[in-house]
Amino acid sequence: MASDDPTDAEAACFEAGIKFGSLYHQFAGTPVSPDSAASLETAMAESIENQPHCIDVTVDVLTDELEAELADSSADYTELTGRFLAVEIVVDYEGCEVVTRMEMEDGYPLMRLESVRS
Amino acid sequence: MASDDPTDAEAACFEAGIKFGSLYHQFAGTPVSPDSAASLETAMAESIENQPHCIDVTVDVLTDELEAELADSSADYTELTGRFLAVEIVVDYEGCEVVTRMEMEDGYPLMRLESVRS
Amino acid sequence: MASDDPTDAEAACFEAGIKFGSLYHQFAGTPVSPDSAASLETAMAESIENQPHCIDVTVDVLTDELEAELADSSADYTELTGRFLAVEIVVDYEGCEVVTRMEMEDGYPLMRLESVRS
Amino acid sequence: MASDDPTDAEAACFEAGIKFGSLYHQFAGTPVSPDSAASLETAMAESIENQPHCIDVTVDVLTDELEAELADSSADYTELTGRFLAVEIVVDYEGCEVVTRMEMEDGYPLMRLESVRS
Repeated sequence: MASDDPTDAEAACFEAGIKFGSLYHQFAGTPVSPDSAASLETAMAESIENQPHCIDVTVDVLTDELEAELADSSADYTELTGRFLAVEIVVDYEGCEVVTRMEMEDGYPLMRLESVRS
Repeated sequence: MASDDPTDAEAACFEAGIKFGSLYHQFAGTPVSPDSAASLETAMAESIENQPHCIDVTVDVLTDELEAELADSSADYTELTGRFLAVEIVVDYEGCEVVTRMEMEDGYPLMRLESVRS
Repeated sequence: MASDDPTDAEAACFEAGIKFGSLYHQFAGTPVSPDSAASLETAMAESIENQPHCIDVTVDVLTDELEAELADSSADYTELTGRFLAVEIVVDYEGCEVVTRMEMEDGYPLMRLESVRS
Repeated sequence: MASDDPTDAEAACFEAGIKFGSLYHQFAGTPVSPDSAASLETAMAESIENQPHCIDVTVDVLTDELEAELADSSADYTELTGRFLAVEIVVDYEGCEVVTRMEMEDGYPLMRLESVRS
């Protein structure tokens, strides 16, 4: 039987998950075009870096994917969603460093733990 | 030196964090009044329960806090934010159950791990 | 040359637009499934009805469209976006009633003024 | 009795309202600090300028207000809400130009039509 009390590594993973959920659901739906992608990337990263224990956030808005979507369309912008994003977030909680990543896999944006180092 | 590979308990905590960040940043800012609090509670819980590994979500919109805020105001609704919420989320990942809670503490909404059982 | 001062009908149309933009960008991205569609419809309508001058909001989450999307997928929920929504919003500003609607047209969700009656 | 068909000026006001509601409910709740305010201003303006008929968006995140709030707090960031924002949006619909503004008034963020010129 395992103890109920979370370890620092578990707390670090919880914090990392909060950052991912926050980033995704705060910004999903934002109007985005190839021209406005860069400012959105910067704002997403800097806003989430404000959150506690968050060391580094890197956001790539995939402009190739955006351009492919818009080429098939009469519109010149679309709404931000997972298939236009690659994100890496690094959290440090009490000396435990967690690296997490979101990327497309089989057509779905998948958030996953890359590494947990205490 | 610790291994890099996350345990099931760490992955469960990561999943639990995602749900909290999603719930908060999807719904923060929603117009809410004492009359519309109940439907918002239900929708928040049911929407996040759709997410993978999410067993149970309980949302309380604190109508006493809402009424106190509106009593001092000329408005009859406000925007949803952490001080009007108490939330419990239960995640099960590969048999590891994580219970998490958000409540006010010293004037701030605090998300925390309650228990991790593998 | 036209006067600068907005008429009541113009102010009513501005208010109606605010409601539509609010509804869409507050709730786009919400995890939704056929089972959770009904509670989301109710919460969306009741939350936006809190806003000033908003008489009535009707939200249909298009469960047929949801089911068609999910049939092609390994997931059992998706994110709310315009192609799963039909919305009608009625605003009354100083006796001027505006009816607005959002529906798909040529593959895009289109928000439009149905009628303006002063 | 007025006709039902909206004028170009009314449609322009509706479009302007959509932009305001979109901007507010997309970005309300974003973690923000004095250091991240500038990138958020740029991203908010550029994202909403993507929307149809939107000529210009100017966003000021009121860093004085942010700093005053944070001085009373143990946190070094807060969530974006109306009292930290001044916004101007200009829409042109079929030659009709509408200027709209959001500012605090009596403690509430008020969105209003400044001018309508056809």
